[in-house]
Amino acid sequence: MQLTMSQKPTLHTSISPALLHLYDLSNSVVVIIDVFRATSTIASALYNGAKCVIPVDSVPKAIEISRNIDGIAAGERDGMIAEGLQHGNSPLEYSREFIENKTLVLTTTNGTRLLQMALDRNADTIVSGSFPNLTAVCDFLVKEKKNVVLGCAGWKDRFNLEDTLFAGAVINRLAKQFTIHCDSSLMAETMYGKYKNKLTDFAPKLTHYHRLVERFGLIEDINFCLTPDLANVLPVYTEGKLIVK
Amino acid sequence: MQLTMSQKPTLHTSISPALLHLYDLSNSVVVIIDVFRATSTIASALYNGAKCVIPVDSVPKAIEISRNIDGIAAGERDGMIAEGLQHGNSPLEYSREFIENKTLVLTTTNGTRLLQMALDRNADTIVSGSFPNLTAVCDFLVKEKKNVVLGCAGWKDRFNLEDTLFAGAVINRLAKQFTIHCDSSLMAETMYGKYKNKLTDFAPKLTHYHRLVERFGLIEDINFCLTPDLANVLPVYTEGKLIVK
Repeated sequence: MQLTMSQKPTLHTSISPALLHLYDLSNSVVVIIDVFRATSTIASALYNGAKCVIPVDSVPKAIEISRNIDGIAAGERDGMIAEGLQHGNSPLEYSREFIENKTLVLTTTNGTRLLQMALDRNADTIVSGSFPNLTAVCDFLVKEKKNVVLGCAGWKDRFNLEDTLFAGAVINRLAKQFTIHCDSSLMAETMYGKYKNKLTDFAPKLTHYHRLVERFGLIEDINFCLTPDLANVLPVYTEGKLIVK
Repeated sequence: MQLTMSQKPTLHTSISPALLHLYDLSNSVVVIIDVFRATSTIASALYNGAKCVIPVDSVPKAIEISRNIDGIAAGERDGMIAEGLQHGNSPLEYSREFIENKTLVLTTTNGTRLLQMALDRNADTIVSGSFPNLTAVCDFLVKEKKNVVLGCAGWKDRFNLEDTLFAGAVINRLAKQFTIHCDSSLMAETMYGKYKNKLTDFAPKLTHYHRLVERFGLIEDINFCLTPDLANVLPVYTEGKLIVK
């Protein structure tokens, strides 16, 4: 739905996949947000020249599809490279040397599941966002002039702060262009306002930080995922694939 | 479950009824939080000498039970006195003159529904909390030394800030006595820390404020509901009733 000039489109923040059903997606651009690390990895791979990223919901499906198209099967379960795969969910794995002109078939714990939920609920447009492509996401949302739902992937339906902080970063930039009347968005922007200049210092307080850094030593991943515009492309979901628009 | 001296009990915050199933309630004290206004009204009625408050999930049930026991049937739907009832969900309606030695049979949009969910999930103990009984809730949680789930009632499963701010107030006082490793609790405490000295000034930014004040002019209700310890009793759910412990 294109709105008339006089109306501002609305913006809502869904802070858990378990709350996504509360929002009307059929007239909205849905931003899938999985900061640690799916949507940071998607931005990284596409920025470095991947042809596309195919998000899938299971390891066998990732293996099967990647075989058929000579792609790279990758993914994680509970923060680790998923059993049966050689590549994981680290944005730093997907350098230009490795991924250029290849297709990445990716399965993750939270992000790919949320994307499927948005599809099932007939989202008008689906894009993927994280700090490394913050500006590309914001520019697109301003240009589209459609209603927006910022969809946080969380962790197994639990609220997490890193996804909410990214939602807050988007709201911080776009507040004047949208009608925002939603306590989740107010909270997200407030939290972002408090920590925007010290995101990496704040990170050790996050539940997911401990999952990734204490167990797997992924401090460089964390820093990449929290730094704006390191991979500033816009992944848009079209016919089963995320491609750069 | 009573914990040993060396272990601190855990504390989690459930920021919407739609997320309550993620937490183990069977070994926990669950604090039902519906700041605007069910749990503020429950505190007010009991503080002013009500014999007990019977929470029910429908207006017909409220009318039937109140007739049988010569109680006061009360409740709201969508912020207004529910059709068929003479009394609503305003804490200021339940003065000592009106409610002393009477039983209040109360049905509300969010709070009573969450209480029923906690019962269905076999919560160990259920108490009700809001700013007017903040200290009573905190004292009880410290004394019990059990795991705690702070259950925010929200608005029709949407996140709201007033319930989360109360969760943050509890965490602010009890952080040292509990093991807290939960992004929802970290967010709640951070938001409370930012606004604790200006809660009533912050209130006009809340979605629910507009529902209550702009539509129904309930500014005095809002101020009561955000002021600590005006009705400092502890409502505990026992055999279908909330009574003062």
